[in-house]
Amino acid sequence: MATPPDRRVLRERYDHRQQIVLSHAAREFAVNGFHATSMQDLVTATGLTTGGLYHYFGSKDELLVKICDELMEPLLVEVREIIDSNWPIEIQLRAIVRVWMLHVEEHQYHMLVFHQERHVLEHGRQWSKVRRQRKDFEELLGAVLKRGERDGEFRFADRDLALRALLGMVNHTAQWFRPRGRLTAEQIADGYVDLLLGRANRLIEGVNP
Amino acid sequence: MATPPDRRVLRERYDHRQQIVLSHAAREFAVNGFHATSMQDLVTATGLTTGGLYHYFGSKDELLVKICDELMEPLLVEVREIIDSNWPIEIQLRAIVRVWMLHVEEHQYHMLVFHQERHVLEHGRQWSKVRRQRKDFEELLGAVLKRGERDGEFRFADRDLALRALLGMVNHTAQWFRPRGRLTAEQIADGYVDLLLGRANRLIEGVNP
Repeated sequence: MATPPDRRVLRERYDHRQQIVLSHAAREFAVNGFHATSMQDLVTATGLTTGGLYHYFGSKDELLVKICDELMEPLLVEVREIIDSNWPIEIQLRAIVRVWMLHVEEHQYHMLVFHQERHVLEHGRQWSKVRRQRKDFEELLGAVLKRGERDGEFRFADRDLALRALLGMVNHTAQWFRPRGRLTAEQIADGYVDLLLGRANRLIEGVNP
Repeated sequence: MATPPDRRVLRERYDHRQQIVLSHAAREFAVNGFHATSMQDLVTATGLTTGGLYHYFGSKDELLVKICDELMEPLLVEVREIIDSNWPIEIQLRAIVRVWMLHVEEHQYHMLVFHQERHVLEHGRQWSKVRRQRKDFEELLGAVLKRGERDGEFRFADRDLALRALLGMVNHTAQWFRPRGRLTAEQIADGYVDLLLGRANRLIEGVNP
């Protein structure tokens, strides 16, 4: 008789399988839409039984909450670590946009779902954590731009518009990014920061006067 | 007995009412999602009877096609006019981003629907026109950036990335733009072009050396 796995092992196995279910669900929602995807579609996509699926998630809403949470929470942890470092502010900004772009790469379907279902997230208590995470992220990023201006490192004609432009650039990337495409996630991140800080055009002028 | 309206008047009245139905539908789809909105919801939103609604549109899909078409077609017409002008290339770019931003302002719900339902538009023959319009728009915009570089007016570290960044900035604006907010659509458009061309930071340095 096999030794039964201890609780930690069971927990890890459960978490791992839940992750796999989440990835499949994110893909289904991204490609077919959240509303148009039925629990039966998810059963087919995951290869689980209906009972097996409900073992991991009680409802489609719960899946969507988890997808958004899985996207935002680790990103926020990384961004806070960067901000707590004592790196120069431009290095911090570059590091943040890189980890953000790596999230776009690793969680592209999650990101697409997050944007497609934005209208769903705007209302209802079950989405309040996701809304707060999104707001926290925007505020952290805004604070970095502000500090860069205060320190005399960055100059924006309109800092708030620059923040919104950056949010637009990076978020839109989920629509077109292809792994192993012409540019890596890091190159795209660096390119966006160069644009934001007005370095993209100047750098070239330096090289090619 | 009232004189019956002639065919032109009937046509105009029909078109006008169809427009109103489209606006209501765009709002419903943007706020509640395309899939989650029923024909009954549209009956309620428009104040028409079910028969009246079907008089204007045969199906929800047809409504969605029209919403996307109403967004892209007039924008393409205006962009082509600008490109056919002999204005200097930077003026052309600025004019294009302004008309584009005015479309975001005037058709904000259309724009939100267009982005939320992107996964729907990617497949199926009924969406081929919309996909072509979107592609045409991106190609026209790309050609303007290319001409600006060729003429020595613009310099991009990576022109394709600059194009995608601009698409991201402007499209994302539909998520946060508020009429009568701090910035007008034109001011936002100008701010984005300044960022793209690396003028946003330099202008300030000129003013405030």
